[in-house]
Amino acid sequence: MDERKRAPPRSRRFAYEGLDRVIHERARLGLLSSLIANPKGLRFAELKQLCALTDGNLSRHLQVLQAARLVEISKGFEHKRPQTVCRITARGRKRFLDYVSVLEQVILDAATAVKAESAGIAGAPPPTLART
Amino acid sequence: MDERKRAPPRSRRFAYEGLDRVIHERARLGLLSSLIANPKGLRFAELKQLCALTDGNLSRHLQVLQAARLVEISKGFEHKRPQTVCRITARGRKRFLDYVSVLEQVILDAATAVKAESAGIAGAPPPTLART
Repeated sequence: MDERKRAPPRSRRFAYEGLDRVIHERARLGLLSSLIANPKGLRFAELKQLCALTDGNLSRHLQVLQAARLVEISKGFEHKRPQTVCRITARGRKRFLDYVSVLEQVILDAATAVKAESAGIAGAPPPTLART
Repeated sequence: MDERKRAPPRSRRFAYEGLDRVIHERARLGLLSSLIANPKGLRFAELKQLCALTDGNLSRHLQVLQAARLVEISKGFEHKRPQTVCRITARGRKRFLDYVSVLEQVILDAATAVKAESAGIAGAPPPTLART
């Protein structure tokens, strides 16, 4: 164990409890990112392509998001062809932006760590130079 | 379906394939964040508290991280008491920072979406004012 003084751990500092599991799952994070960028809605086929998901995975993850009332799905017709359109709800938008603010904390923590380490290296005593 | 013109979807734009599942799991994300902030290592008890994990969950997630060679675990004694110390490896540090750069893209995408929406609202025609 290194004997250098460490700041005492602040309780639960890295629990990141705001990382809502419904949103944090990678495919659902991609789906919500797509939908917030396209607030007028996206067709099933577009979502599938944007998020690189299979039909089955897309359906399954949309169901989870719909059950949590983060997205709404409407079925209709366009040029006589059936279309499924997904939209982010107001609740989904709010919850997603709350989630993103926790991600910002994760990034800030990583940046702080990298900075502290660089500063540590920079602050190390320089190699002794032989004086002439 | 809204008829307003949408930019055609750029393929796989929101797949976020760089969000490595080993790291993305919430507890493991917290563990790696703790360990990158404490490169000299953290004791089992400290990690447990910082990440708000039970003994069982902590062990399980550390095993996954150790199997992926992202952390190393050493057992030793301190004041005659057994201590388990965890450290992030060089590989873990690199992989974690690669992961964080993808998170930055997620945040950038969300910020761009919010900005575009605000601009859209700001750009809406103002209510007609009766001229006197």
